[in-house]
Amino acid sequence: MELLKKRISEDGRVVGQDVIKVDSFLNHQMDIALLNEIGKEFKRRFNGEDINKILTVEASGIGIACIAAQYFNVPVVFAKKTESRNLDEEVYESKVFSFTKSKNYNIKVSKRYLNSEDRVLIIDDFLANGCAAAGMMDIVRQAGARLVGIGIVIEKGFQNGGKMIREAGVRLESLAIVESIKNNSIIFSEEKKGENNK
Amino acid sequence: MELLKKRISEDGRVVGQDVIKVDSFLNHQMDIALLNEIGKEFKRRFNGEDINKILTVEASGIGIACIAAQYFNVPVVFAKKTESRNLDEEVYESKVFSFTKSKNYNIKVSKRYLNSEDRVLIIDDFLANGCAAAGMMDIVRQAGARLVGIGIVIEKGFQNGGKMIREAGVRLESLAIVESIKNNSIIFSEEKKGENNK
Repeated sequence: MELLKKRISEDGRVVGQDVIKVDSFLNHQMDIALLNEIGKEFKRRFNGEDINKILTVEASGIGIACIAAQYFNVPVVFAKKTESRNLDEEVYESKVFSFTKSKNYNIKVSKRYLNSEDRVLIIDDFLANGCAAAGMMDIVRQAGARLVGIGIVIEKGFQNGGKMIREAGVRLESLAIVESIKNNSIIFSEEKKGENNK
Repeated sequence: MELLKKRISEDGRVVGQDVIKVDSFLNHQMDIALLNEIGKEFKRRFNGEDINKILTVEASGIGIACIAAQYFNVPVVFAKKTESRNLDEEVYESKVFSFTKSKNYNIKVSKRYLNSEDRVLIIDDFLANGCAAAGMMDIVRQAGARLVGIGIVIEKGFQNGGKMIREAGVRLESLAIVESIKNNSIIFSEEKKGENNK
């Protein structure tokens, strides 16, 4: 998605060897016009697929998923990371390791909002090691729902998440894939096509 | 907002004395069509106000804020609750007590995304004791920005948050105000008008 790559190149900030900060437009401050273009692009790529629910995980996936959901006419469910007295007791739960936060946490979805009738599109802002995606895939599996595909805004192609998902035969659509970071500049790769990709 | 009150009455679940669960449509699973009506209603109520940014707090405020932002044509900034290696070091920070989670936490906004030029609308899903709202108001104050108003989806009128905000002279627009919960049914009050309300 050229508009997105352009924006990442212009406004993304490289920190250290492998961190790309896009918090001016994607995951702290959010450019809603850009999010709408991202939502349209997800719809274009998954057009014709039988999707009745979008699953994401708090926090930075939520805005992207909600804007995208408008183009699919489906509800969004977000997996919760934090303990809350208000969450149902009956939940699907999966353990996720966060490299950004250097700790394990559990993600949870109430059993009320995901079941074997659902055809799920997972959406998230970043795919790096794939831990959050694997946790959501695990929850979809526990629910007996059908995983239609995964839509990612920025994939770090030099980390293992994309490979893990594609090798699992899951359709993955990443709108921008970063191949490498060299001398503070971000190099994008062409899209990788998994077996299930069209 | 009648559509919202109707939905709360039909699909909200009362737990114990004072918890209203609306996680089937607002803050775990999200009905995006309803969120659009909520966004339009915020725009109707704050129409003509000079707003250039919407501030919310993760996680459940984000979806509501992003959908609403489409009607204001402004970006959203969400305050972060969790520690992250990726957050800027220069932040506005405020301590918030969560009754739901029974603990204190800090909310943070990077200084890059809020400054004295900003005219801010705060949006959140719930207003109860007003701790999260007070934290966001504190951050707006620290930034030297102008707080135009606060838009809340569901205010618990029997708790102190609304009173605190109205007495501070801040314009508060709550789309549904729950006056009390009796025998598992939710009773709404008429809208309270603060001094600054139109």
